[in-house]
Amino acid sequence: MTTSEETRDGFLGGRLTISQPRFGYRAGVDPVLLAAATPAKPNQRVLDIGCGVGTAAFCLGARVSGLQLSGLEVQPAYAALARRNAGTNGIAFEVFEGDLANPPAALNEMSFDHVITNPPYYRRERSTASPHEGRDIALAGSTSLETWIDFATRRLLPKGYLTLIQRADRLADVLRAMDLRVGSIRIRPISARIGRAAELVIVQARKGGRADLVLEAPFIMHDGTHHDSDRDDYTIEARSILRNGAPLEWSS
Amino acid sequence: MTTSEETRDGFLGGRLTISQPRFGYRAGVDPVLLAAATPAKPNQRVLDIGCGVGTAAFCLGARVSGLQLSGLEVQPAYAALARRNAGTNGIAFEVFEGDLANPPAALNEMSFDHVITNPPYYRRERSTASPHEGRDIALAGSTSLETWIDFATRRLLPKGYLTLIQRADRLADVLRAMDLRVGSIRIRPISARIGRAAELVIVQARKGGRADLVLEAPFIMHDGTHHDSDRDDYTIEARSILRNGAPLEWSS
Repeated sequence: MTTSEETRDGFLGGRLTISQPRFGYRAGVDPVLLAAATPAKPNQRVLDIGCGVGTAAFCLGARVSGLQLSGLEVQPAYAALARRNAGTNGIAFEVFEGDLANPPAALNEMSFDHVITNPPYYRRERSTASPHEGRDIALAGSTSLETWIDFATRRLLPKGYLTLIQRADRLADVLRAMDLRVGSIRIRPISARIGRAAELVIVQARKGGRADLVLEAPFIMHDGTHHDSDRDDYTIEARSILRNGAPLEWSS
Repeated sequence: MTTSEETRDGFLGGRLTISQPRFGYRAGVDPVLLAAATPAKPNQRVLDIGCGVGTAAFCLGARVSGLQLSGLEVQPAYAALARRNAGTNGIAFEVFEGDLANPPAALNEMSFDHVITNPPYYRRERSTASPHEGRDIALAGSTSLETWIDFATRRLLPKGYLTLIQRADRLADVLRAMDLRVGSIRIRPISARIGRAAELVIVQARKGGRADLVLEAPFIMHDGTHHDSDRDDYTIEARSILRNGAPLEWSS
């Protein structure tokens, strides 16, 4: 099934097998954390914007039963892999191919309980061109964060949740891109180790939410204060998400 | 010196004596943390917008020598107390009386290496009226956060620092109120205890700054996971700021 341009990687302790390009954008812990932070309930509708090969959607589908999972992906090769991964893992996943700045008409008529997304991490003007176009689009993107979050907001049902993961240094950009259609914002910093600045943030907002913003305690990925290459030093909380597909708890 | 409407309170382990209204807005740990987080160097110019009775400015003046400290305060009674506190503590402090939406002309001609501020904490539409007008203005304010931060930005020299403390639930409002004149934003969550959501945030930005935003590890105020009323359970780091006037370290 795989070619030399692909790898097959296990996620959630081997519960999922995900084919992805050997070169270019590759799923790491980010989509796993994104899925863990999404409070989906059985049979709800979920859209992953920029779903790539589908890792976040499959992690969520592995944890919560009966979800109606949909994804939007602009790159045909990633969309094709996402469809193949759905079959491999036995998880229903409807993949729309298209650009969120000009989305497929069918998708524009749909609404969701949850929209999840891992928007491109780097501002185009700062990133250097990659020899792998796929990676370039996945990392830098050609669509502004405002467009990304606006589309997510429009696709949400009232009281639906937008959950996104992003580099911590774009927190201001994320919050500025959210407008008054969403509220009840919760921010979960993700830090490699205790006492370190956050590397990533998970930001969650609710359509029509009116609760105060909450800046949660950081989620810590690794035990100790420095890297010990001799062992897997994930914290208990990180390991239970990455290996067992546990949810990331929001309450603090 | 004091009347029944006033108290005299020690700050920084008794190094400062601050007279403040018995009722109404009263300085707590917030202005002490604000001063601790301000990286002022000897002989620099500092403006405290909404200085109240001057607590943050005096804490900063006690730590850093030769500062030219100025303050703007809209409430005459607080401004008068700030001037009296300057004399009591032997710290030069020029207090301008006026509204930042229509600031004194002399202040509009001045620029500063540092602007510090503890803007009103509650949105007016959400707060219930207080029987103490002074407290009402200090807590709710009649001036938007945008106006507050715009005025602060205009008063900064190039590369000058804006340092503010605010309730954590207003983090999005603070970041949205900052525009492209400032950058190099650093956010320091302040949490009562480890693992808790942040109660306050210190947000620092630099005029003309171009560095990436940094979301720092939380500053923890108290040891342990719950309150022990039998003892002062401040962390070593909190105690060294509150009792000894140490700076709050930003690097992480």
